[in-house]
Amino acid sequence: MAAEGAEISVKTGNNHVGNGNGNGDPLIVFMPSGRRGRFPRGTPVLQAARQLGVDIDSVCGGRAICGRCQVVVSEGEFAKLGVTSKGDHLSDFSAVEQRYADKRSMKPGRRLSCQAVLLGDLVIDVPEDSQVHKQVVRKRAEMRAIEIDPVVKLHYVEVAEPDMHDPTGDLQRLEKALKEQWGLTDLDTDLRVIQGLQSALRTGKWTVTVAVHLGKQITAVWPGFKDQVFGLAVDVGSTTIAGHLCELSSGEVVASSGLMNPQIRFGEDLMSRVSYVMMNPGGDAEMTKAVRDAINDLAAAVAKEAGCTVQDILEVTFVGNPIMHHLLLGINPIELGGAPFALASDGPTMFWASEIDLKIHPNARIYVLPCIAGHVGADTAGVILSEAPHEADEMTLVVDVGTNAEIVLGNKERLLAASSPTGPAFEGAQISCGQRAAPGAIERIRINRETLEPRFKVIGCDLWSDHPDFAKQTEATGVTGVCGSGIIECIAEMYLAGILTQDGVIDGSMAAKSPRIQPAERTFSYLLHDGTPQLRIFQNDVRAIQLAKAALYAGARLLMDHLNIDKVDRITLAGAFGSHIDVKYAMVLGMIPDCDLAKVSSAGNAAGTGARIALLNAAARDEITRVVKQVEKVETAVEPKFQAHFVEAMAIPHKTAPYPHLAKAVALPAPKVVMPRDDDGSGGGRRRRRRG
Amino acid sequence: MAAEGAEISVKTGNNHVGNGNGNGDPLIVFMPSGRRGRFPRGTPVLQAARQLGVDIDSVCGGRAICGRCQVVVSEGEFAKLGVTSKGDHLSDFSAVEQRYADKRSMKPGRRLSCQAVLLGDLVIDVPEDSQVHKQVVRKRAEMRAIEIDPVVKLHYVEVAEPDMHDPTGDLQRLEKALKEQWGLTDLDTDLRVIQGLQSALRTGKWTVTVAVHLGKQITAVWPGFKDQVFGLAVDVGSTTIAGHLCELSSGEVVASSGLMNPQIRFGEDLMSRVSYVMMNPGGDAEMTKAVRDAINDLAAAVAKEAGCTVQDILEVTFVGNPIMHHLLLGINPIELGGAPFALASDGPTMFWASEIDLKIHPNARIYVLPCIAGHVGADTAGVILSEAPHEADEMTLVVDVGTNAEIVLGNKERLLAASSPTGPAFEGAQISCGQRAAPGAIERIRINRETLEPRFKVIGCDLWSDHPDFAKQTEATGVTGVCGSGIIECIAEMYLAGILTQDGVIDGSMAAKSPRIQPAERTFSYLLHDGTPQLRIFQNDVRAIQLAKAALYAGARLLMDHLNIDKVDRITLAGAFGSHIDVKYAMVLGMIPDCDLAKVSSAGNAAGTGARIALLNAAARDEITRVVKQVEKVETAVEPKFQAHFVEAMAIPHKTAPYPHLAKAVALPAPKVVMPRDDDGSGGGRRRRRRG
Repeated sequence: MAAEGAEISVKTGNNHVGNGNGNGDPLIVFMPSGRRGRFPRGTPVLQAARQLGVDIDSVCGGRAICGRCQVVVSEGEFAKLGVTSKGDHLSDFSAVEQRYADKRSMKPGRRLSCQAVLLGDLVIDVPEDSQVHKQVVRKRAEMRAIEIDPVVKLHYVEVAEPDMHDPTGDLQRLEKALKEQWGLTDLDTDLRVIQGLQSALRTGKWTVTVAVHLGKQITAVWPGFKDQVFGLAVDVGSTTIAGHLCELSSGEVVASSGLMNPQIRFGEDLMSRVSYVMMNPGGDAEMTKAVRDAINDLAAAVAKEAGCTVQDILEVTFVGNPIMHHLLLGINPIELGGAPFALASDGPTMFWASEIDLKIHPNARIYVLPCIAGHVGADTAGVILSEAPHEADEMTLVVDVGTNAEIVLGNKERLLAASSPTGPAFEGAQISCGQRAAPGAIERIRINRETLEPRFKVIGCDLWSDHPDFAKQTEATGVTGVCGSGIIECIAEMYLAGILTQDGVIDGSMAAKSPRIQPAERTFSYLLHDGTPQLRIFQNDVRAIQLAKAALYAGARLLMDHLNIDKVDRITLAGAFGSHIDVKYAMVLGMIPDCDLAKVSSAGNAAGTGARIALLNAAARDEITRVVKQVEKVETAVEPKFQAHFVEAMAIPHKTAPYPHLAKAVALPAPKVVMPRDDDGSGGGRRRRRRG
Repeated sequence: MAAEGAEISVKTGNNHVGNGNGNGDPLIVFMPSGRRGRFPRGTPVLQAARQLGVDIDSVCGGRAICGRCQVVVSEGEFAKLGVTSKGDHLSDFSAVEQRYADKRSMKPGRRLSCQAVLLGDLVIDVPEDSQVHKQVVRKRAEMRAIEIDPVVKLHYVEVAEPDMHDPTGDLQRLEKALKEQWGLTDLDTDLRVIQGLQSALRTGKWTVTVAVHLGKQITAVWPGFKDQVFGLAVDVGSTTIAGHLCELSSGEVVASSGLMNPQIRFGEDLMSRVSYVMMNPGGDAEMTKAVRDAINDLAAAVAKEAGCTVQDILEVTFVGNPIMHHLLLGINPIELGGAPFALASDGPTMFWASEIDLKIHPNARIYVLPCIAGHVGADTAGVILSEAPHEADEMTLVVDVGTNAEIVLGNKERLLAASSPTGPAFEGAQISCGQRAAPGAIERIRINRETLEPRFKVIGCDLWSDHPDFAKQTEATGVTGVCGSGIIECIAEMYLAGILTQDGVIDGSMAAKSPRIQPAERTFSYLLHDGTPQLRIFQNDVRAIQLAKAALYAGARLLMDHLNIDKVDRITLAGAFGSHIDVKYAMVLGMIPDCDLAKVSSAGNAAGTGARIALLNAAARDEITRVVKQVEKVETAVEPKFQAHFVEAMAIPHKTAPYPHLAKAVALPAPKVVMPRDDDGSGGGRRRRRRG
């Protein structure tokens, strides 16, 4: 094989590789790799590419069936390459190509490289979509693209018919064909493939398409030519199960779906599900069945959406927190309910779909990403795979906010991970007017610094609440509550407007400025929306958010201590919550340490993206297994400094840590101290100490 | 590790290996290997043995639990070894050893090598039963012993408890323990093991016994110490399914059982079962279910007999002819019903017990020996493994007689295999008075050369029929028919007594000598037993046996042609039929070529023995896979010479081939020619030609 680059000199003695016998043969140069060689006139372009190690896709092995090997002739002079390339240096568009184009359509100028043969010097462009290792570009520019190299690949083969004079098994003749036509050797074969092999070979008139898993195992055989198989990447969250169905050769997401995790009926949060198991023998099996049933529903839904069948799904990858991981795998999660929080296994797990009762292709394989520690699961491994802090030069903080916050901090030198017990406040639970993100929930809030009047937006309507059409457009949904991102903005805006002190006390003296500040019980409240229901922020709501954000900050700070650093270069907020939040408000609140706001971003469902990467790129599995082993696990519960950091972090944004980047970007109010109405002289500290 | 032999010099610079610091340390010599080394006083004997590479068994890893590591001190002077060995050169019998002896019993003089420590120079005997690679001696002296090296091994380990400060999965701590305590690395683990792991570790108080499959896969974990697991070797015959349950570490057969193959209700012989599939869609699934159900019954029966449970069965090996092989594996056998007789696979097959619905340990693995060709199955592979013709210097003919005869011929240079269509005559079918081998069936026959009076023995009675007590002792069974071996002897004795000509014609003129020769239809018959039922040998019965034996001989002769040889050095008759037959009569009849009768033997169920070898010795699986690939397959149906050999072989023992060894051992009658009563002038040849 030739090396990469346009002006290579090949280390084979002379300057070119190929079958050609010297300079009389045409020179072919493939772009963008720049690989080049001389081959006899009449050599198919695909054959030349194969010998030069040029990355051109093919399922049918050069039989003009799959159309994956399309190329384009670059016309013109290429002085630098020493070639004059012209269309007539390639054989005419053939009847075989025309037949393919008629049947499947082909862009103008495209040629099937398995059919077009070399007649003179040529420069050939291999379009991205004809490469095996194409890249799937991701939405955010800073993210590395996913290189497609799926664990399941299709190979079309022609198999020799049996011969009584030289008796061999059908499987052995298939193996011989795979070796001769695709260079695949030492393959194992699933029993179910052997069971269906003879029928497939005869139905396909001795041609079949073979699915090979990780280059080692024959997992499916279909008669004749088959173009596509699919993989499913699933994020099993405590609340939501989300799946993406991908066509495995292109990496394209062809269908996505999400559904509620039916385990919710056994308990809203993780610990209540573990409690359910403790109280109800066999409860783990019930929850295992529930989640597997849901995944079967999900698989059926995405297959329907994509117009394929569940039998076309040959691979599934999973991420999930440790308890979801264990319940999915049929492992009793009871050990995760108490110290020392021992996982059954922290390694990656690979097995058959049937072993967890998934009703997809009977030989489909499941890959579950490794867990990191008892509180830091395969979902965090997925986040790492997606966000790749282990490849960063910059000191990178990745926070995945759910009921717990998983925190990863480091760069290519070291990587640390911990979990902080934020509780469900960020999800709208424990907040008097909180609710899940759903139409009608307030998600954006601004408070006028002078009048203290709020305006807001609700999910399902693009207008702000002070727009004249707002009431009409939200007639159907109403204004029903405040979701997680709305709470963050509301508390931060209350602070920025001076309604809250840095200690998180609602300043009753502001009642003089606005009737929205009202006494409530022994403290004050802020009236956010005077509708049905009436939405108020009480002192206890502020406290709940302070506790949650302090836990999150303290976890991050603890990892910074371990790395002996005082600031981070980049922050990524992952998870459904992280994708809806305005990162500026997260910083105003002091959920995260100070950082250049231009380098704080939301990653969306990074855990799910990690599952998708593990689905589409075989090497990513080795990568994440290696990285997870190297991650330094920090257990917040046994670190004495965590409590101290927690107490310090109760203030908005923080009692002692400076926020220079934030101060530059946002007008922070001057400090003031207000005693809460129920104060006994020790300020908010009493409440904090009690909890500590 | 030291090399084998009593007077070794070790290539480590000085003359000994070990931890010792020179000649001041005691010298220990292990017998029978002769491995030796110096170790500090106080070194446990097992530890010294490990370092010297001496083969001593242990499941518990030196914790005085398993008792597998017992040794004996050889007392006395060993001038040749340079050692004075005395009992007091070893530490006293300890309280720990006493505790083991009290609980499990120990032979006098035996010591636990994990507890006994070195105090002075010693010669230690390692008894056969303390070696890992012990050998199971087989009944026939000429057979190589089975070296025990089972695919499943047990390892007792102590596992570290989880530590919150250094969070790792239970599985990972188990893997660490297996590495540190047993040197096992890179193990994979079944999902079901992970599911039960946490409970096993905690129930066993952080000690467990682990089953490792082929040194690569953890397939079972039990709390605490477990001493034994079992494997089942099964021969799936068309008529009978036979199984041996073996304790895997000793190789001992602890229970055996056989039952009828319930597929018989779909057809007596193989081809009628294939026909059933052709006529009845889904018929293959019915037969697959029937045979798997029967194997489950068999497993339950042998487990009960051995006093274990089916859950203790961790490994099963199978042999069977190609159609039984396919039906067991759930492969439609229809392709085997007609040319070109293509097998789905001719390779060995390994999978989970659950994949063929076996109700044994859920992670038990199945190994099915490779098939050789469309008519020569995994049963023949088992015969080869058992009889090892591929290791012989002598030219060896192995014949496995069933409905077809599988024939293997060769030596360590070349090995050939073929199948001959003998039909079921040897099993008593197609014979008017024939029956299966069962109590009441005649199995031995002698005919007085003068009076032509027969005497015989029946199955279930040790007396000959001319004994005064015979009638009384066979009152219960009666004399019901003639089984396969009885037919062979009867036809051969009829020939030797002059009742039959060499062409197989019943000589009507002999009616003058005995009233037992009687006209029957247009020929004659021989009255074997005038009871109820009356048992007669008719001309057609003789013809059926002639056809069967001619097919067998012709197959063997064809392989001899391929090897360009005229005689064989050794003949083994395998199969239930082969084990009951008197080999002399097989040769009188001309079933097999001439050979020194001292070198003709019966091997019993060699196919089943092959399955047992594959169960007990992992390397045997690679061996048989390699040998089967090298076997030269001969298809009798497409070899023109087969027909010619067949016609020649109709005569008794043969028309043209000489039988010098037989002639020396047995008084063969002088040739005579008799026209059969229905003869039209062309002799028996007409009948033969018609069939040919």
